Amino acid sequence: MSGTLYGVGVGPGDPDLLTLRAHRLITGATVVAYPAPDTGESFARRIVAEYLPEGLREIPIVVPMKHARFPAQEVYDRAAAEIAEQLDAGRDVVVLCEGDPFFYGSFMYLFARLEGRFPVRIVPGVSSLGAVTAAARRPLCAREETLSVLPATMPEHDLAARLVRTDACAIMKLGRHFAKARRVVERLGLTGRAVFVSHASLPQQICCPLVEAPETAPYFSMILIPGKDAHV
Amino acid sequence: MSGTLYGVGVGPGDPDLLTLRAHRLITGATVVAYPAPDTGESFARRIVAEYLPEGLREIPIVVPMKHARFPAQEVYDRAAAEIAEQLDAGRDVVVLCEGDPFFYGSFMYLFARLEGRFPVRIVPGVSSLGAVTAAARRPLCAREETLSVLPATMPEHDLAARLVRTDACAIMKLGRHFAKARRVVERLGLTGRAVFVSHASLPQQICCPLVEAPETAPYFSMILIPGKDAHV
Repeated sequence: MSGTLYGVGVGPGDPDLLTLRAHRLITGATVVAYPAPDTGESFARRIVAEYLPEGLREIPIVVPMKHARFPAQEVYDRAAAEIAEQLDAGRDVVVLCEGDPFFYGSFMYLFARLEGRFPVRIVPGVSSLGAVTAAARRPLCAREETLSVLPATMPEHDLAARLVRTDACAIMKLGRHFAKARRVVERLGLTGRAVFVSHASLPQQICCPLVEAPETAPYFSMILIPGKDAHV
Repeated sequence: MSGTLYGVGVGPGDPDLLTLRAHRLITGATVVAYPAPDTGESFARRIVAEYLPEGLREIPIVVPMKHARFPAQEVYDRAAAEIAEQLDAGRDVVVLCEGDPFFYGSFMYLFARLEGRFPVRIVPGVSSLGAVTAAARRPLCAREETLSVLPATMPEHDLAARLVRTDACAIMKLGRHFAKARRVVERLGLTGRAVFVSHASLPQQICCPLVEAPETAPYFSMILIPGKDAHV
């Protein structure tokens, strides 16, 4: 009997935003895997650090930063092989996923390699979108409104074209694209409704009107433009 | 000292998808409020029924079905007054919100009436989007992809125009708009990638390729069109 692979959303950062199921799977785990940078701590692991049981086997999936945009397939090939070994030995493997596993998550690379060969269960989590909206203290979208989630990485004219055609919007992955995204929002006259949020749900959370945002933004930050109906 | 108003996401339906914080607030509550239909059970209350403490004071917010699209403001005026009375008496009030409080949620009507007058805390929850994606067992969006959330209630040509301009898509609020939404997806040649999900995370969950979906769909169901990058 092979083990089961669990893709478990651990939420946006506050350990209190784990689901009951995630908490149970993690506290009862014998093997966990998680994405990790080549230097420093794994964010996904840090979120659940207080819940990790003793004697746990850990499989860090080290993705070199320079490959962060298009992750080296070999990294995931190797991680999948290491996880498969555990599953073949009958041990369940819990993969810790920041936010929600299938909302811009790297879990999909393991899923693509292991699904079909082993039982896989997905445990959804609170996404960064929910955390950012809660931080902003603004309803994001209401009633018949449309919502667009746009990565700031896209070309300026594309971003603008999509922004004018939606009611509510979340611009993600700001980092070095922040100045561009901000410029687009300003040019379209949407700055008054726009909120900047970084590190949502964490002690170092920043949340302010876009016009008061710092000059630079981390990769994990967002500009939120709530829908107009969402204020009633 | 007035009490605090908590807008608490209770997730998509499976009680196991409550967050630890939601669980703690609900098991320790003295007053809860929740949306309820004029006949039958409240879905939000049902999700957490097993966690409700004894001796709890309950404030059902009964929204008559015929006003479901544009809720009668008086219903929320009255509910807000009843909740304010509890807060003024120094009691915290936990409002149970299906999914996430600010993602198409009716909590915004209470928030608009009580914010500023009382301390308010928002507890994000697992949204229907996360639950539907987990049910579909498909990564929803990846890397530089854009995601659109579109209510099926919009006119057919609007829906089509927005659908062609996004990488990944979730069409919500199907109900009596299901046939139209399905027609649009088919016309744009997207049926092959489209998945139909209803009652995500619940025992009666249905999940199938759109082409195999039943003739009719409940209001709480979705068509998911995962991004092309999200399969690697």
